[in-house]
Amino acid sequence: MNPYSDDKIVDSWEKNASQWSAAVRGGHIESRKLITNKAIVEAVLSRSPQSVLDIGCGEGWLIRELSLRVPHLVGVDVVPDLIEKAESAGGGDFLVASYEDIAGGAVEGSFDVVVCNFSLLGKDSVEALFKALPAMLKTDGVLIVQTPHPVVASDQPYIDGWREGSWAGFGSDFIDPAPWYFRTLESWVALFAGNGFRLLEMREPIHPKTHKPASVIFTGANKAVHATSA
Amino acid sequence: MNPYSDDKIVDSWEKNASQWSAAVRGGHIESRKLITNKAIVEAVLSRSPQSVLDIGCGEGWLIRELSLRVPHLVGVDVVPDLIEKAESAGGGDFLVASYEDIAGGAVEGSFDVVVCNFSLLGKDSVEALFKALPAMLKTDGVLIVQTPHPVVASDQPYIDGWREGSWAGFGSDFIDPAPWYFRTLESWVALFAGNGFRLLEMREPIHPKTHKPASVIFTGANKAVHATSA
Repeated sequence: MNPYSDDKIVDSWEKNASQWSAAVRGGHIESRKLITNKAIVEAVLSRSPQSVLDIGCGEGWLIRELSLRVPHLVGVDVVPDLIEKAESAGGGDFLVASYEDIAGGAVEGSFDVVVCNFSLLGKDSVEALFKALPAMLKTDGVLIVQTPHPVVASDQPYIDGWREGSWAGFGSDFIDPAPWYFRTLESWVALFAGNGFRLLEMREPIHPKTHKPASVIFTGANKAVHATSA
Repeated sequence: MNPYSDDKIVDSWEKNASQWSAAVRGGHIESRKLITNKAIVEAVLSRSPQSVLDIGCGEGWLIRELSLRVPHLVGVDVVPDLIEKAESAGGGDFLVASYEDIAGGAVEGSFDVVVCNFSLLGKDSVEALFKALPAMLKTDGVLIVQTPHPVVASDQPYIDGWREGSWAGFGSDFIDPAPWYFRTLESWVALFAGNGFRLLEMREPIHPKTHKPASVIFTGANKAVHATSA
């Protein structure tokens, strides 16, 4: 298997499903606990959605977090072990599907918000998913993506490309880290604009210790909305 | 005079008009010479404009650079000495006007591109200008803004606010540096979106020495365009 590929990402996450679930549920990931979890919840709730699709939902914490406020919640992940854990904990409906499956129509219905929280890690799979997303949103729906802040996260030359994964800071039971495809801010904005999204917001949650952005959260609206409302 | 104010910016630039003109015309500013001049010219020409308004044009280099490719060029600056130098060198029409004047209708006509190249340095003046800009663009016109990359430029906490100016790296004949109002990327995007612009692009020209973004160039379209074309 190509060590820098969308397939390898899935392979690695399958090997770390239990460790990951324990880390998320135990609040072991400092940046998430301090800032990025709250930031994505606020971004989603700022839209007052009646329906949310969480793509790459993992063990389902975000669905559970939203469950008191949002009536219709669906979580999707490619890793069966993670979806099994999410289903056990409840809060919404869950489904095993790859990004290619989703792009091919695996998720029924349309949503007020589609959210991808640190889950767009690949290259081709992400690009295929973006093409399919506008059709999965209601007319006034939005796509919300949280990802590491490219300018802060990169200690390599600032260009798109595969990066080696790392479990630095995680427990010794984490193995075979997933590679990830780095995109500059320019490329993220192009991914939204090129697929017909109007970028409404780009939040930069600030890490309380470093005083730098801990992440970036893009909110993009269906182009159609603004054709209608303008 | 408040040392951190829009007025102080104008005051400082008036004192440095000759020094600045000499530095620009002599190619003394490395980042401009290596990367950001070319980047803004390319961003403007990528729109194949028939008319360009350069707001904060200084001594007029960008108008001159565009003059072989763009038939209708207008440059505006608040500093009379700079406009005098721009007029002497030619390439387009030039006008002395403050951002408040421009917001109040000082520039006639509408343009394919309005460009602000490292010229949006203030707070209230910039916000007032943004409100007025959509009406100064043709229906399918765009606003192009180049500014220091906030994430790279800031060694202070990443929050909006006034910053002390500096002429470090410039000659000893530069005096009394202008303060500037720092905006995060989040705030820049909000300035575009909040004034009805659809962000089409966010270019990040890479500095060939540091391999980090030397600047950021936003291109925003009139909302109306997409209402019509969608």
